[in-house]
Amino acid sequence: MSPTITAFRSSPDRGRGLARDMRVRWALEECGLPYDVRLLSFEEMKEPAHLALHPFGQIPTYEDGDLALFETGAIVLHVAERYAGLLPDDARARARAITWMFAALSTVEPPIVELSMASILERDKHWYADRLPMLEARVRTRLGELSRHLGDADWLDGGFSAGDLMMVTVLRRLGGSGLLEERSNLAAYIARGEARPAYKRAFADQLAVFAAASSGS
Amino acid sequence: MSPTITAFRSSPDRGRGLARDMRVRWALEECGLPYDVRLLSFEEMKEPAHLALHPFGQIPTYEDGDLALFETGAIVLHVAERYAGLLPDDARARARAITWMFAALSTVEPPIVELSMASILERDKHWYADRLPMLEARVRTRLGELSRHLGDADWLDGGFSAGDLMMVTVLRRLGGSGLLEERSNLAAYIARGEARPAYKRAFADQLAVFAAASSGS
Repeated sequence: MSPTITAFRSSPDRGRGLARDMRVRWALEECGLPYDVRLLSFEEMKEPAHLALHPFGQIPTYEDGDLALFETGAIVLHVAERYAGLLPDDARARARAITWMFAALSTVEPPIVELSMASILERDKHWYADRLPMLEARVRTRLGELSRHLGDADWLDGGFSAGDLMMVTVLRRLGGSGLLEERSNLAAYIARGEARPAYKRAFADQLAVFAAASSGS
Repeated sequence: MSPTITAFRSSPDRGRGLARDMRVRWALEECGLPYDVRLLSFEEMKEPAHLALHPFGQIPTYEDGDLALFETGAIVLHVAERYAGLLPDDARARARAITWMFAALSTVEPPIVELSMASILERDKHWYADRLPMLEARVRTRLGELSRHLGDADWLDGGFSAGDLMMVTVLRRLGGSGLLEERSNLAAYIARGEARPAYKRAFADQLAVFAAASSGS
């Protein structure tokens, strides 16, 4: 029996793979695990049936037999701990890879979300132009620290791990902002992630959902 | 040999226990693990010696023999997985408790940090009053969802876990905002966390650091 995840029926990013189901799809592909997808409209996400699975009414969720999880980080960690492909065997290296998962979600992603939310929700406000440099500065601080740590390494700590999977998907949210282009090693890092066969399969699958929704099928 | 964590030499919250070392102290106390603390000034946090431990120049870090970790979530999870007291034995319940750790850090904390950062850094800006209702609304949405999930239960999923530890410390950041008082079950939930002996020991220890720093000793 394959696990079932949930995803947007109608992708708000028009198939760019920025929704959080992409992170879970990629993790499952890295581990070679087949999975089913249940698509949800924005209305369905706030209905009792989905809220019983996800108290905050979001996607993705993960159901495998009688286990039901929400939160992308928790789902990716659960998959990574049970199947080979996303965490090293050595206990210390494993703990460090998990550290990078948390760093992506807790330290790097929040200022990126703040910047992108403002660009969507506050672009027409009178304060937008005044606040933008502050929001960009916060993101640049994190990118600078991350870039210094990465240096000319391929991945954040040894081989590719769930920490890289999470960091690459977090950084991809900055596409179009111009900020990634200021750090060439980070741009190359993202490209290395996107070049992985498992990433490509996951990306194609989420794009197919968007294509089907936009063709009305 | 006890693990060593890092903390602020001079607590920016004046001993209210809102800095992230409190989360690690509490976790270690729940597991009955003695630990050492190395205090750092803001300048020391940005120096190469600390950046080698924590690429983003923050506290806390965790050193145990030849293992060095950063990120509060990763440290608490590492402790919780190795010592009894913070995660249930049943594999499914364990995965759900870890889910709540991620929910606290990825879903509930970001809008709370955004609100508190704005109240510190943007209070004197001309847009502050216009933006405040939007920031408070985002926090209220999460508090409402969390309050509905918690209902009249003591903890988020069965017995007290690392998920509750993380959520209580995240919610405590709202103290003084007036928002917690709107959800009496959440206020009672925080009080239950604060009443735990391990919490009290951790709180007293971080307060002692502040008291020592402010007396100049």
